[in-house]
Amino acid sequence: MDVATVNSERFQDRFELFCQIGETERGGVNRPSLSDANRDARNQLVEWFEEAGLTVSIDEMGNIFGRRDGKNADAAPVLFGSHIDSQYNGGRYDGVVGVLSALEVIETLNDADVETDRPLEIVAWSNEEGVRFQPDMLGSGVFTDIFDLEYAYSREDSDGYVFSDELDRIGYKGDEPCEPRDLHCYFELHVEQGPYLDEQDLSIGVVEGVYGFSWLNASFGGKADHAGPTPMHLRNDALVATSDVINAVRRLTATGGTDLVGTVGSVDVYPNSINVIPEQVEFTIDLRSYDNEVVEQAVEQIQNEIRYAADREGVSWDCEEIMRVDADPFDDDCVATVERAAESVGADYMRMVSGAGHDANYLNTICPTSMIFVPSVNGISHTEGEFTEWDDVVTGANVLVHAVTEKAAMTETTEISQ
Amino acid sequence: MDVATVNSERFQDRFELFCQIGETERGGVNRPSLSDANRDARNQLVEWFEEAGLTVSIDEMGNIFGRRDGKNADAAPVLFGSHIDSQYNGGRYDGVVGVLSALEVIETLNDADVETDRPLEIVAWSNEEGVRFQPDMLGSGVFTDIFDLEYAYSREDSDGYVFSDELDRIGYKGDEPCEPRDLHCYFELHVEQGPYLDEQDLSIGVVEGVYGFSWLNASFGGKADHAGPTPMHLRNDALVATSDVINAVRRLTATGGTDLVGTVGSVDVYPNSINVIPEQVEFTIDLRSYDNEVVEQAVEQIQNEIRYAADREGVSWDCEEIMRVDADPFDDDCVATVERAAESVGADYMRMVSGAGHDANYLNTICPTSMIFVPSVNGISHTEGEFTEWDDVVTGANVLVHAVTEKAAMTETTEISQ
Repeated sequence: MDVATVNSERFQDRFELFCQIGETERGGVNRPSLSDANRDARNQLVEWFEEAGLTVSIDEMGNIFGRRDGKNADAAPVLFGSHIDSQYNGGRYDGVVGVLSALEVIETLNDADVETDRPLEIVAWSNEEGVRFQPDMLGSGVFTDIFDLEYAYSREDSDGYVFSDELDRIGYKGDEPCEPRDLHCYFELHVEQGPYLDEQDLSIGVVEGVYGFSWLNASFGGKADHAGPTPMHLRNDALVATSDVINAVRRLTATGGTDLVGTVGSVDVYPNSINVIPEQVEFTIDLRSYDNEVVEQAVEQIQNEIRYAADREGVSWDCEEIMRVDADPFDDDCVATVERAAESVGADYMRMVSGAGHDANYLNTICPTSMIFVPSVNGISHTEGEFTEWDDVVTGANVLVHAVTEKAAMTETTEISQ
Repeated sequence: MDVATVNSERFQDRFELFCQIGETERGGVNRPSLSDANRDARNQLVEWFEEAGLTVSIDEMGNIFGRRDGKNADAAPVLFGSHIDSQYNGGRYDGVVGVLSALEVIETLNDADVETDRPLEIVAWSNEEGVRFQPDMLGSGVFTDIFDLEYAYSREDSDGYVFSDELDRIGYKGDEPCEPRDLHCYFELHVEQGPYLDEQDLSIGVVEGVYGFSWLNASFGGKADHAGPTPMHLRNDALVATSDVINAVRRLTATGGTDLVGTVGSVDVYPNSINVIPEQVEFTIDLRSYDNEVVEQAVEQIQNEIRYAADREGVSWDCEEIMRVDADPFDDDCVATVERAAESVGADYMRMVSGAGHDANYLNTICPTSMIFVPSVNGISHTEGEFTEWDDVVTGANVLVHAVTEKAAMTETTEISQ
């Protein structure tokens, strides 16, 4: 059965308009969660949802849903979408392409007079980024019962503004309960945020699942002596010990023969003075793999390396695992649906695993889920330099049309020439 | 010829009183340069100088001199002293023991009715620490023509307060020109700020000179990718490169067979986030030796290590030497005087080199100079935990009596029992 293809021009016009909301001088967008710019973007989205004939509902977390009825009104809907909140001075594509391609799918089905058996719902999740209110993925997290509503409401930003108040302030504290409900499946199109697709010149990633990870907070405590008169053999240098661990993380990822990636992203040195031996260093370690056992072994090995480094340098140590998330394989059947969709549109694709977490992870806990990745040029993301070729975005949206209509049991179609 | 010994009790009473000025809850003092507490300490010092019969003069930099005439009023004086400004929440001994022991030497000679051939002058130098106004050793620096007066006056603290205004505000912008003048020699008693004397259970260090050093500001620039989806082989991690250099500094000092010490004291990581690969790291390197050639070779080698690390990790690099100070050997004759003095008082001593800079370095450029070190327990300095056994301070003051009177050609003495 032939499937309609999206209208690239309409889609791009809408995307460009949307990027003007909270746009930055260097070509990005600054629309952190529940900011005025985020409100303006929500307002625009709701307007477009309504223009497309969708029934809009806002839930208690400010998640925005747009529903298109199916022949079978009581059937569990096919849900698809992403998020529109951004990093501070973030990129234009992250999240947005998932929400606007979902809307474009609806417009395309409208244009083609397609009626699906199942209802379709598109969604923009609240607070995916987690840069203003932690943790991230708060909207989908409450929706899937990972977090309590009260917990989410109580989150404060660094200026003391409370999530609940800010949600109210921008007018998006809705009435619909934010809780798990019966869904047939969930799809999310997203930029890869990594370099694999771009490196291999592919348009589509069929996402089989998401890496698990461990976050460690570690510290060493030494002695803050003067850098001049203190002989080397009497030093207890917290930074030298830290350096050993940074090297150990790199060595472990380079030589383990696994898919492990490891990063020391944050280092804070005290007193951080040119002529004082570092007394205290606090640092973080991020370890990821699609194999939970690999993460587990890496955590153990790095904890050993921390102890060895502390022993060598004669410093005290501390290491706390502040988060552990298991690898999250998506539903085989949904992954196969995305793969078939990629084949149907003739896209160059590969199956792959996501290193980063997405709303799809939480949805995967309550319904069959998969994701569609489009390339991030040079793997750049979370900065204003984020870029995806528009043709790839369109290809992704067409894959989404196929995946959604397969799952929603399309019963009628009209061909539209590109 | 027998020499008088100091009055330990009087000396200690005065020290304890002085420590109450700007004292901190944890047993240190907070008297940064030109603060109110620094003014109060100066007022107390001037009062004591006058009570001891000294002629007090304040120069344009706020350096405080107290003069005791000699038989030969026109002879170049023997100058000795140190500083009374402190680190923020610094220790009680740093600088203070040098100034108060100088005063105690005067009191002791007064008690013993000793008249010297040469005049004696004691001094408290302004702004030795350099924590509020940079650079450090500003008072002795202008006095020895290392810095212009106008340059010193223009120094601003981090709140925008200007040295000249603050000196005026606390009432210590004196009339005496701050410039080199004819001095017979200069002695300075100071806490070691290192662990050597304490480690070897010695009371006195006869200081032969001061290490030279190089300060490097270095940086690496990589790519701030997401810690999850970015494969190891595509990373350009500025922190991994930095870690290589931290290790190289330690390796170089540990294996060179020289007296080189090396420290990476300050590291600033951007964006410094747990799940973002470090894009930019700025860090400092402090390299010291008593052999200028060793410092030179170390600088070259570390610059090479920086280039190698940048090549390995595919990051850009920058390295700038922001300061180079040659090793500073003190006057042989003055050093011998201090050594004889240590022997005369029966002190356990050793000849040693100072890793840290002192006002004595600058005085050494205009007159014969040496220093007397007393132990820092566990080598701790620049913190409230700084401590020196009082007996060692007294021994140091007695060594100073001997050294000063030898150089000033003492012509009369009265024995005083201890």
